[in-house]
Amino acid sequence: MTKPIFVLGGPNLNLLGTREPEIYGRETLADIEARLAGQAGPGSLVFRQTNDEGQLVDWIQEASRDGAALILNAAGYTHTSVAIRDALSACTVPVVEVHLSNPAAREGFRQVNHVAPVANATIAGLGAFGYQLALDAARYLVSEKGQPEP
Amino acid sequence: MTKPIFVLGGPNLNLLGTREPEIYGRETLADIEARLAGQAGPGSLVFRQTNDEGQLVDWIQEASRDGAALILNAAGYTHTSVAIRDALSACTVPVVEVHLSNPAAREGFRQVNHVAPVANATIAGLGAFGYQLALDAARYLVSEKGQPEP
Amino acid sequence: MTKPIFVLGGPNLNLLGTREPEIYGRETLADIEARLAGQAGPGSLVFRQTNDEGQLVDWIQEASRDGAALILNAAGYTHTSVAIRDALSACTVPVVEVHLSNPAAREGFRQVNHVAPVANATIAGLGAFGYQLALDAARYLVSEKGQPEP
Amino acid sequence: MTKPIFVLGGPNLNLLGTREPEIYGRETLADIEARLAGQAGPGSLVFRQTNDEGQLVDWIQEASRDGAALILNAAGYTHTSVAIRDALSACTVPVVEVHLSNPAAREGFRQVNHVAPVANATIAGLGAFGYQLALDAARYLVSEKGQPEP
Amino acid sequence: MTKPIFVLGGPNLNLLGTREPEIYGRETLADIEARLAGQAGPGSLVFRQTNDEGQLVDWIQEASRDGAALILNAAGYTHTSVAIRDALSACTVPVVEVHLSNPAAREGFRQVNHVAPVANATIAGLGAFGYQLALDAARYLVSEKGQPEP
Amino acid sequence: MTKPIFVLGGPNLNLLGTREPEIYGRETLADIEARLAGQAGPGSLVFRQTNDEGQLVDWIQEASRDGAALILNAAGYTHTSVAIRDALSACTVPVVEVHLSNPAAREGFRQVNHVAPVANATIAGLGAFGYQLALDAARYLVSEKGQPEP
Amino acid sequence: MTKPIFVLGGPNLNLLGTREPEIYGRETLADIEARLAGQAGPGSLVFRQTNDEGQLVDWIQEASRDGAALILNAAGYTHTSVAIRDALSACTVPVVEVHLSNPAAREGFRQVNHVAPVANATIAGLGAFGYQLALDAARYLVSEKGQPEP
Amino acid sequence: MTKPIFVLGGPNLNLLGTREPEIYGRETLADIEARLAGQAGPGSLVFRQTNDEGQLVDWIQEASRDGAALILNAAGYTHTSVAIRDALSACTVPVVEVHLSNPAAREGFRQVNHVAPVANATIAGLGAFGYQLALDAARYLVSEKGQPEP
Amino acid sequence: MTKPIFVLGGPNLNLLGTREPEIYGRETLADIEARLAGQAGPGSLVFRQTNDEGQLVDWIQEASRDGAALILNAAGYTHTSVAIRDALSACTVPVVEVHLSNPAAREGFRQVNHVAPVANATIAGLGAFGYQLALDAARYLVSEKGQPEP
Amino acid sequence: MTKPIFVLGGPNLNLLGTREPEIYGRETLADIEARLAGQAGPGSLVFRQTNDEGQLVDWIQEASRDGAALILNAAGYTHTSVAIRDALSACTVPVVEVHLSNPAAREGFRQVNHVAPVANATIAGLGAFGYQLALDAARYLVSEKGQPEP
Amino acid sequence: MTKPIFVLGGPNLNLLGTREPEIYGRETLADIEARLAGQAGPGSLVFRQTNDEGQLVDWIQEASRDGAALILNAAGYTHTSVAIRDALSACTVPVVEVHLSNPAAREGFRQVNHVAPVANATIAGLGAFGYQLALDAARYLVSEKGQPEP
Amino acid sequence: MTKPIFVLGGPNLNLLGTREPEIYGRETLADIEARLAGQAGPGSLVFRQTNDEGQLVDWIQEASRDGAALILNAAGYTHTSVAIRDALSACTVPVVEVHLSNPAAREGFRQVNHVAPVANATIAGLGAFGYQLALDAARYLVSEKGQPEP
Repeated sequence: MTKPIFVLGGPNLNLLGTREPEIYGRETLADIEARLAGQAGPGSLVFRQTNDEGQLVDWIQEASRDGAALILNAAGYTHTSVAIRDALSACTVPVVEVHLSNPAAREGFRQVNHVAPVANATIAGLGAFGYQLALDAARYLVSEKGQPEP
Repeated sequence: MTKPIFVLGGPNLNLLGTREPEIYGRETLADIEARLAGQAGPGSLVFRQTNDEGQLVDWIQEASRDGAALILNAAGYTHTSVAIRDALSACTVPVVEVHLSNPAAREGFRQVNHVAPVANATIAGLGAFGYQLALDAARYLVSEKGQPEP
Repeated sequence: MTKPIFVLGGPNLNLLGTREPEIYGRETLADIEARLAGQAGPGSLVFRQTNDEGQLVDWIQEASRDGAALILNAAGYTHTSVAIRDALSACTVPVVEVHLSNPAAREGFRQVNHVAPVANATIAGLGAFGYQLALDAARYLVSEKGQPEP
Repeated sequence: MTKPIFVLGGPNLNLLGTREPEIYGRETLADIEARLAGQAGPGSLVFRQTNDEGQLVDWIQEASRDGAALILNAAGYTHTSVAIRDALSACTVPVVEVHLSNPAAREGFRQVNHVAPVANATIAGLGAFGYQLALDAARYLVSEKGQPEP
Repeated sequence: MTKPIFVLGGPNLNLLGTREPEIYGRETLADIEARLAGQAGPGSLVFRQTNDEGQLVDWIQEASRDGAALILNAAGYTHTSVAIRDALSACTVPVVEVHLSNPAAREGFRQVNHVAPVANATIAGLGAFGYQLALDAARYLVSEKGQPEP
Repeated sequence: MTKPIFVLGGPNLNLLGTREPEIYGRETLADIEARLAGQAGPGSLVFRQTNDEGQLVDWIQEASRDGAALILNAAGYTHTSVAIRDALSACTVPVVEVHLSNPAAREGFRQVNHVAPVANATIAGLGAFGYQLALDAARYLVSEKGQPEP
Repeated sequence: MTKPIFVLGGPNLNLLGTREPEIYGRETLADIEARLAGQAGPGSLVFRQTNDEGQLVDWIQEASRDGAALILNAAGYTHTSVAIRDALSACTVPVVEVHLSNPAAREGFRQVNHVAPVANATIAGLGAFGYQLALDAARYLVSEKGQPEP
Repeated sequence: MTKPIFVLGGPNLNLLGTREPEIYGRETLADIEARLAGQAGPGSLVFRQTNDEGQLVDWIQEASRDGAALILNAAGYTHTSVAIRDALSACTVPVVEVHLSNPAAREGFRQVNHVAPVANATIAGLGAFGYQLALDAARYLVSEKGQPEP
Repeated sequence: MTKPIFVLGGPNLNLLGTREPEIYGRETLADIEARLAGQAGPGSLVFRQTNDEGQLVDWIQEASRDGAALILNAAGYTHTSVAIRDALSACTVPVVEVHLSNPAAREGFRQVNHVAPVANATIAGLGAFGYQLALDAARYLVSEKGQPEP
Repeated sequence: MTKPIFVLGGPNLNLLGTREPEIYGRETLADIEARLAGQAGPGSLVFRQTNDEGQLVDWIQEASRDGAALILNAAGYTHTSVAIRDALSACTVPVVEVHLSNPAAREGFRQVNHVAPVANATIAGLGAFGYQLALDAARYLVSEKGQPEP
Repeated sequence: MTKPIFVLGGPNLNLLGTREPEIYGRETLADIEARLAGQAGPGSLVFRQTNDEGQLVDWIQEASRDGAALILNAAGYTHTSVAIRDALSACTVPVVEVHLSNPAAREGFRQVNHVAPVANATIAGLGAFGYQLALDAARYLVSEKGQPEP
Repeated sequence: MTKPIFVLGGPNLNLLGTREPEIYGRETLADIEARLAGQAGPGSLVFRQTNDEGQLVDWIQEASRDGAALILNAAGYTHTSVAIRDALSACTVPVVEVHLSNPAAREGFRQVNHVAPVANATIAGLGAFGYQLALDAARYLVSEKGQPEP
């Protein structure tokens, strides 16, 4: 298996480490990337962030074409984007949804989730540590060669 | 840290391995318990299942009193039990919610979730493998001595 | 066909005959059992009642394993129990739902029904006589070896 | 008892036996009528079908005036007709609702039911066999001279 | 291909040309029929209108039996008739839904649509010209021998 | 003014006087017609009843074409018929809605009303006497040559 | 019968005749009172208006104690006042609801109506003329000594 | 009057005094029982707690049979249990609902309440002191021999 | 503690004793005041009633400024008044909500409650006796010098 | 332009400066009035507050008749009063809605707003300073002699 | 008429032909463009696709400025974009909405449609062939010089 | 204070002055910028517009980092963008929301507002003049060094 795993981040994740550190921790997105790359080994990750919905759709299509799996934290677009949902439905590699916090314990408008129904797995509420489990999960799904469900 | 981690299962999980194996896999609950116990080391897990809501409430209280953390798959009670929700709110150890499948991709009545808002973390959609990540997550939360959020 | 048909009753059905007899009739649950056993023949029925949701889940699993069919009056749990619904979904024998009264003509919260969508057939509004038709229906479904629908 | 029992069918039931036979069976409405007439005895049934809502209202009024009981499969009008509901409310003979399939397991718009709240009893999910039980039920209700309950 | 295409119209379409001509145009239903017949060629259309729901169900059944395709403007019944929906579900020839106006831009009660989910295609908002496209569409679907979707 | 006023009645009104007389009174529809004709004078009323929705649509169109005004008690179709609503929207003479009882004090499904939003006036809750006021109202609206509102 | 009929008006009705005369007409409330008093005869009406909800409650209680019937146009309080609803429920004389316009054809928030379910009759959409019919209706209800329904 | 008053408690009330004492106070359930028994006098109370829904149904039936009145704090089952609601409906002795806190000021899912509509009285928001008032209330209702109202 | 406790009543409570005495009892508001004043001692109560929402707001502000506690039966305004809710939120003395009947067992529009979420405690369903418990409750809360919750 | 601008305040605004000063500031309503009068110049403001809904309706009518513009902070009545909404609809001078806080960031029941849809402009979230901008806005709208929209 | 017709496509349409060909067909977007260009003639089409919402808004503005008409398949943005809706509202050329599949037969979140209410016409459910009809429709609307409705 | 105030505009605002000038006025965005820059003084404003949601998120982050305050008219994204909401939540400078029109008086889908709950202040309905008040408001909030609320 030589294709990389894509780790894509959505809007405002570039603020990590400086925004409300008592909630989101003091690690920056670069810190997370560095540690995850160490865990994954050289060349095995594509790690990107954007504030743009259309850009995320482009990258999800790219991950489906060129990647082995997709780890996605769509942040605010999780709750509003049917375009991302459709891109994930068309995605032929396993998808693991990640959230630093636990959206189920937050505002009502975050209870609408367009990513979860079309993801294979969800990891939420573990802060930056959740990315490490997401990498484990993505590799497991790849080795299983398919989605256990739904 | 010598207190065990409680791994509690709700209704119909005792059917695992025989019910719809193409969806839930061929592993029985005993298989999951055996492998998880191997991963955790001797004496470090309390592993139980019941079809009874009141029994689950009793055990959650016991886990809060005698355990280091709680891994909970409340199955059907996830969607209906305020009693379990209240027990989890009173729980003083970290709680990791696990689901074999991805409830977000299933029927509308499974979109009501009384466990997620009072759990520290959620792992869903990875079949039996999710229990291994949940054990990692629970240990991480114990070592962090607290919930990263909400 | 030597496996028995299970006839399971839910909460408050043990009050039959004494509670509001002008509505529910003067027959007790024991009366119903006696007449139904006469209709069915010796050894061909397992007849039980409980006020406990978890107990019903246990018995539904038992009926699926050891019975030929299941006649279920889940009473109040009809409207609230996803655990019972999941047990019925996993049930491999025909399921006939029975109600003494006609829930459709009652309060709004009884319009939520978790049993009907996973039952093969429903008989409602005929009082104790409905159990006799339910036995006919269960035998028909067993002889058909399958559900005519959905 | 010399008044006949009316058996009325609503829209599209005339297609029975040719439409989706793997779901609705291969029996035509004429087959059902013949077998039911045999069970009931000569002259004791009035058996009709129409695709027209107003026609059904006329016939329900007629059944109330000239019949001993009414067995009604209102098909698609079950979910939309307040006119039929009002006719049934004014009906002075027992009413048994029949459905070949189990509407509770079907689309959301079939969860609105204007017939059940004003029927005495409901039989659903047993295919053509349900008509036989409905005849038993109607006779039982006639002999009881009244509705055991709304 | 010698079977005709049925073009069926629902309630109030007989008022076309005289009712609110600034909205619906000055063409009568007879004008539309004449032009459409010219486009289709002799004997290839069956063109009818009724204000009656049951009559439409009868004709839809006839179109399925004797026609090559069905072009349906169910007008007000579009939003209320499960009977028509069931008739269309049982219809074995392609169905094209037509609307003179754009129901999506009108009142909330027109947002319920029982025809669209069981039609192969929809043409809306083009006035009488929409019938010409509907004829193109019906012929295309017949030549494709099947529905492209859903 | 020599055109007649149409007084149209919907489903089950033909049962008046015999159905639940303690609620609807002991007057039959013929009694109402006779007294109203006396009030109106010879030849000035067209008085009809039907259980059929399509028939009502036909007659509403006729009233718009040949009548001076329309007094309509659509009974059960009041709550379900978009076809009647559309016919009333196209109606060019004043429309007075009448109800014997007060639908606002009845079941929830009667709170949906497709007639009131397209009627000029509503008279409800006065039993058969309401028809006399409706005749006054219709004549007032005719003499005003237009609708005072909405 | 010597007790007067109370005619009570709610907020903003004092603006009649000057506000949007193309909708509400050019008659002032004083004009309506004068004509109605003529129709009723000397001393047989109590005619009042207020913008205050509590004042209306006081007057409704007074009408129940000292009046023969109540004609009420609660205007904006129709849609928001449970206090008025409770006062009407306690009212022991017939209540006729009047509206100048047809609220059913107006904004969504006017579809909530706290007066209609506790009134005996409703007259709407006839402008100032509606008051004359309301007086007829009130007298009819008084002479009937009771409410024909619900 | 020699029958005892039943005081039944639902899930998680056994945690009182140790769980969130700044909210629920430092009194344990045993403390409440002791003080209430002192107030009531010897033998006049039956005081029990369980985390099990079915157990509560059993005890409510027992209270109806063997008790003079029932004081019930159903805790989390207040919001989800139709089984308890049905048991209370069948209960022939007065029922007083108690809550330590004020559910109306808490989460949305606590706004659904299946106990209050079938209780005679409710006492909420007074902490453990509320039990003393509930005892007063129960005795008052017993002495009144009936419910002043639903 | 020499400040009085305010006992404020909302719309229609002045009808007590004469309105539907089989429901609300035969005691008048003056009877309740007399007995409550006896229980409280001279000068320790301010007892008032009004049908006016703004008046209640004025008095609640006065109670907060000049009183020791507030016992409030807002009657119909309970369900509609944000103004009263805001006044109670600004109130710095304990608030006890009282209802003679049990609003939870009544109409749907009474399930909206603007008082309960900002009250300290609620007493409902005990008729006039509830005022005595409310006085006990108010004194308890005053002596506790604070709200036990929420 | 010599007519004054009316500045009207609703319930509980008389508590300003003493209630929750950390939220609403330490300025009293008199302070705001004084500063605003200074900004406006002598005789150019009418500044009033009431806790009474009917009083506000009276004053809004007066402002429409005698004023140049209306600045309204309806406080709690913003969310419940159709009477005020109707008065504003009939108002012929520009209306500027003011709120000290930002209602959009507060409770759900404050999301219903009956003032905004009939106001010309809204200023919210700026504390007492918002009144100064509202005065600027009112003058601007007066000078524009009309509403820029909707 | 020398201005071109714009044919704009939204997110994921670039995957056509490779994604789920059994549903969407094997034609790529380039195939559709080629055939449509042949039908339209040289220079008469501007054909573009983007995954970006803001880009679509830019292009819609451009089409309104430089084009004769707009054919738009907004794909996933159809259901979420008020920005696109506003751009279409400001568009001064005819707009034809196209969908390959039939959104009415798909998930609930696709029942929200922000494009249809501001389009002149809709063509859905005909796969790629729908583009040809959309071109016919656009030309017809251009030649009509206006929208036939709403 | 030398940091500039950012004035950011969302989709379709670039059409100002040419689109529906009777509603939005004849001023272009450049006109507004020019006048606002004059009011603010040289170098004290950053004024930008985009149709792209991601671009707005980038700029809001920039305003938080490099600006003194943010004046935002998010136009259509106001109603749909959680990404913008999250960016504003993370914003550490005061935020003033501006709308040219009054969204509260417009379509239902504009009643969802993701900007207002995380803005400090809102100015709506004053056309281009609202920008001048927004500049006053922003300066006031900056000088107050904090948000007065919520």
